Amino acid sequence: MSIKNVKTKNISWLKLKNTTTTPETEKLFEDSIETRGFIRNMQAVLGQFPAVLLAQDALSRALTVEYEGGLNGKERELIALVVSVQNRCRPCVWGHAAKLRQITGDALWVGGIEVNYRDAELSPRERAIADYVQKLTEAPETVEEHDLAPLRASGVTEQEIIEVVAIAAYFNFSNRINSGLGVQPNPEPFLSFR
Amino acid sequence: MSIKNVKTKNISWLKLKNTTTTPETEKLFEDSIETRGFIRNMQAVLGQFPAVLLAQDALSRALTVEYEGGLNGKERELIALVVSVQNRCRPCVWGHAAKLRQITGDALWVGGIEVNYRDAELSPRERAIADYVQKLTEAPETVEEHDLAPLRASGVTEQEIIEVVAIAAYFNFSNRINSGLGVQPNPEPFLSFR
Amino acid sequence: MSIKNVKTKNISWLKLKNTTTTPETEKLFEDSIETRGFIRNMQAVLGQFPAVLLAQDALSRALTVEYEGGLNGKERELIALVVSVQNRCRPCVWGHAAKLRQITGDALWVGGIEVNYRDAELSPRERAIADYVQKLTEAPETVEEHDLAPLRASGVTEQEIIEVVAIAAYFNFSNRINSGLGVQPNPEPFLSFR
Amino acid sequence: MSIKNVKTKNISWLKLKNTTTTPETEKLFEDSIETRGFIRNMQAVLGQFPAVLLAQDALSRALTVEYEGGLNGKERELIALVVSVQNRCRPCVWGHAAKLRQITGDALWVGGIEVNYRDAELSPRERAIADYVQKLTEAPETVEEHDLAPLRASGVTEQEIIEVVAIAAYFNFSNRINSGLGVQPNPEPFLSFR
Amino acid sequence: MSIKNVKTKNISWLKLKNTTTTPETEKLFEDSIETRGFIRNMQAVLGQFPAVLLAQDALSRALTVEYEGGLNGKERELIALVVSVQNRCRPCVWGHAAKLRQITGDALWVGGIEVNYRDAELSPRERAIADYVQKLTEAPETVEEHDLAPLRASGVTEQEIIEVVAIAAYFNFSNRINSGLGVQPNPEPFLSFR
Amino acid sequence: MSIKNVKTKNISWLKLKNTTTTPETEKLFEDSIETRGFIRNMQAVLGQFPAVLLAQDALSRALTVEYEGGLNGKERELIALVVSVQNRCRPCVWGHAAKLRQITGDALWVGGIEVNYRDAELSPRERAIADYVQKLTEAPETVEEHDLAPLRASGVTEQEIIEVVAIAAYFNFSNRINSGLGVQPNPEPFLSFR
Repeated sequence: MSIKNVKTKNISWLKLKNTTTTPETEKLFEDSIETRGFIRNMQAVLGQFPAVLLAQDALSRALTVEYEGGLNGKERELIALVVSVQNRCRPCVWGHAAKLRQITGDALWVGGIEVNYRDAELSPRERAIADYVQKLTEAPETVEEHDLAPLRASGVTEQEIIEVVAIAAYFNFSNRINSGLGVQPNPEPFLSFR
Repeated sequence: MSIKNVKTKNISWLKLKNTTTTPETEKLFEDSIETRGFIRNMQAVLGQFPAVLLAQDALSRALTVEYEGGLNGKERELIALVVSVQNRCRPCVWGHAAKLRQITGDALWVGGIEVNYRDAELSPRERAIADYVQKLTEAPETVEEHDLAPLRASGVTEQEIIEVVAIAAYFNFSNRINSGLGVQPNPEPFLSFR
Repeated sequence: MSIKNVKTKNISWLKLKNTTTTPETEKLFEDSIETRGFIRNMQAVLGQFPAVLLAQDALSRALTVEYEGGLNGKERELIALVVSVQNRCRPCVWGHAAKLRQITGDALWVGGIEVNYRDAELSPRERAIADYVQKLTEAPETVEEHDLAPLRASGVTEQEIIEVVAIAAYFNFSNRINSGLGVQPNPEPFLSFR
Repeated sequence: MSIKNVKTKNISWLKLKNTTTTPETEKLFEDSIETRGFIRNMQAVLGQFPAVLLAQDALSRALTVEYEGGLNGKERELIALVVSVQNRCRPCVWGHAAKLRQITGDALWVGGIEVNYRDAELSPRERAIADYVQKLTEAPETVEEHDLAPLRASGVTEQEIIEVVAIAAYFNFSNRINSGLGVQPNPEPFLSFR
Repeated sequence: MSIKNVKTKNISWLKLKNTTTTPETEKLFEDSIETRGFIRNMQAVLGQFPAVLLAQDALSRALTVEYEGGLNGKERELIALVVSVQNRCRPCVWGHAAKLRQITGDALWVGGIEVNYRDAELSPRERAIADYVQKLTEAPETVEEHDLAPLRASGVTEQEIIEVVAIAAYFNFSNRINSGLGVQPNPEPFLSFR
Repeated sequence: MSIKNVKTKNISWLKLKNTTTTPETEKLFEDSIETRGFIRNMQAVLGQFPAVLLAQDALSRALTVEYEGGLNGKERELIALVVSVQNRCRPCVWGHAAKLRQITGDALWVGGIEVNYRDAELSPRERAIADYVQKLTEAPETVEEHDLAPLRASGVTEQEIIEVVAIAAYFNFSNRINSGLGVQPNPEPFLSFR
């Protein structure tokens, strides 16, 4: 397969020509199709700025896919979803609810997180993580060191705190890419793993 | 110069061992010292996760340094500062106020942005940009396509809208890395270009 | 079938004995099982106060089921969902998303409303309704007569304005019954009409 | 007395014909005049939808008048007033301040609640109730089971918690009927029991 | 009459000795008793710092009593009340509602302002003034020159704008003296001019 | 030197004639030039209402300059700056950051307060004071007596609590004078004591 042009019409508020790929972004898009079967609209739009797209993709993979140790997949996706629900970002809520369904096999539980994580069944460690990223999303200027106490008390290590914060920060980035550009959600994740 | 260890003690809330570099992060830190004379504390902390650090650095450079065309440097740094002031992030406010002083040579004007961009003298185009990123920072869920009208009316192109949004989104990321980890600001930028 | 006792254990935060029905509430619960196959947890809890349950049920039916003319079913359920999403009420979001899926046959569209109605495809009339009930939910003290202009401009009649307001007001009631008592959602609606 | 038509002009923002009663609403209006000497404007407007009016009236009576046991009258009206003050609803503030003056005979104390219940003299039980309904009104999505601890500690029973929540929820309904329709307050309660 | 000591016990949260007057504050307190029949608790507490009390009293009189021309008394007291209602300050709401009753002779209208000025009958000029001081109270950082347009359009002069702002600013001062020190309201104004 | 006219053009949003002094305001302006070398724009504008200017000046001096005992200068200016940063008032932030630089000789520390006092190094006493005035500024209606506990615990006396509150209240006044009138900041303080 070879991707020379990526459609960018009607997938955001922007009036853009279709994107001509560079060798690096061509590979990125090909990998995306191979891995998940489609190109995410956010990445199609960012394709207009290859350097930004490549850095975003590297950051996303660094935080949610490729590293070992630290937070498990359920915790990583919980952070993604809690942040994205707070910011009410359609593409990210749909995408990460799907991943959390895939990991947990529990669509009902995930559906609860999509409304209000405070009412969902969470372990103390998960709850401490969720509360921290909620506060960091809503009011970063009020976060203080003592807010870390519940994380440390439930066994989150210093290294894992960096992960928690970096994942939450990343979704505050990607949510705003989507909300600021009016990126339409891809339908595939919404329908999967139910 | 060769950087094998990067100090991470007392530069954040975290109790971390000093960071051992990888070849890639070693180069990044060496470049940082060469370019700006010091290592930013945020990057020192992220050095614990080389893949995240490298992606963050690539994203930062992609948005604020390396690309051509589109927004000028003053506009890019204005976005950085407006977002960081709203999020009350010390390292980012100090760092990007310094860059804006360097670009404009007008410490007084920058000092006004540090308090309230609404009271500062801005061109209609700058004001439209500032208003958009302020709203995207405070309440991303309420941003709608009609909010883009003032940008388009003042000559911001579709390509430039992506830049505006991506830079604003990036600082909503980096502000939260700093605020979530309690990263101490480096003093150098505070003192420079006055 | 005859319902003499309704289970109220582990369906809310309250430590309650199971509810003994009165003839009227017995009939209500029997009808509920006949119509939807289960008893909603909110009604099971309210069964402790028969007069409140009967009035709540009458109000609910008056607003969403039984009347003729005025708003169509899609509009009624749109109001229910927009209000319940704002208040982040799990039982109501699940229940009324299901009804909206049933009416529209469009799970994807409903899934968009569940995140952010501002990004969903709505007719001008639907959008005017959604904006009004959003404001009435978030900040009732700021609603003024001029806020009705978009509704009137899109053909909402004076009679229908009463419906819009009454439905929105009712869900601000039922959301708070659920959130104030920690009522657990019934799982059935979550799974239906997908 | 026989009420065939209820005036609905100039008592709200709506341009409505006067309401023709049904036998049930005729009785309701006649009872209202007999009991309190006038028809509340909210009920006059809701008279356009007999089923809604009848259900609203039943709910209101179920919560504030007719039941025995549980919260006393002062507590019930305190909830009504705290919620209505927060929502800044003129008809409800005036109406329930009057009832609280009638019950307590202490216009000064009631006048304090009308400004800020936090500064008024309340028993620990009353204060716990007031704090709970304030939070449930302002931010229902943040209410959690541990917020019930002060109520339970001050002797509020599980049954009474349902009352507290139902009354608070009901006024979040009726406040929004008034605020969403621009219902004018009746003057009589404002002037009574001083 | 000679006032050498002013009672400060049980009129605020503070544990203070009674205040010994200076010749200047003695005169101030004597004038207060002569004019209104009592000493306002806020002034009794501030009597501990004679210079602050004298300046506060001079500022208060300069803004609400002594000047000629400009805003009329109803407008001045409207500002006082709108600001104090927003800040939910008991002594100021009671005091300035009384003055507005005295000026207008319309307790019902004043009672409406005490709940929500948006629902009260105001002239366009009064409404423009009320909206401006409401915004200046809630979110001073967002006030911009274009917010003055409705005032200017309704005939408020440049000189009068200073009055509007100074009165609103003053009550943001006095409200916080009361709220920060827990000053108890004097009962007299609550009961007067009804 | 004799000041008969004070320039008021282009120092605020107002279209004002230059101000003719009275003997009292002439002295005030002369003293200002003698003491600090310039006339503050806020005072130039208030010069239009001599009684208000004189009272404001007396209040300002009573709180920040002339009294003995109680809070030290650093604490007084810390309050001024914390409040003014929250209200995002340019003239007051610039002016009181300068005074705090003068007192502490530590521009870096002051620069931290200008972004977020929560991240700055404060003694427990200073932190208790800062938290109290932050809350009193943001949400005066929620301040309660128990919020005073940290102040009392760190040695703030009852007399000093009056100072804390009065200074915070005063800057909620002066911030709104500036923000409501669009007063331009004087540049001198911004540049001094660095």
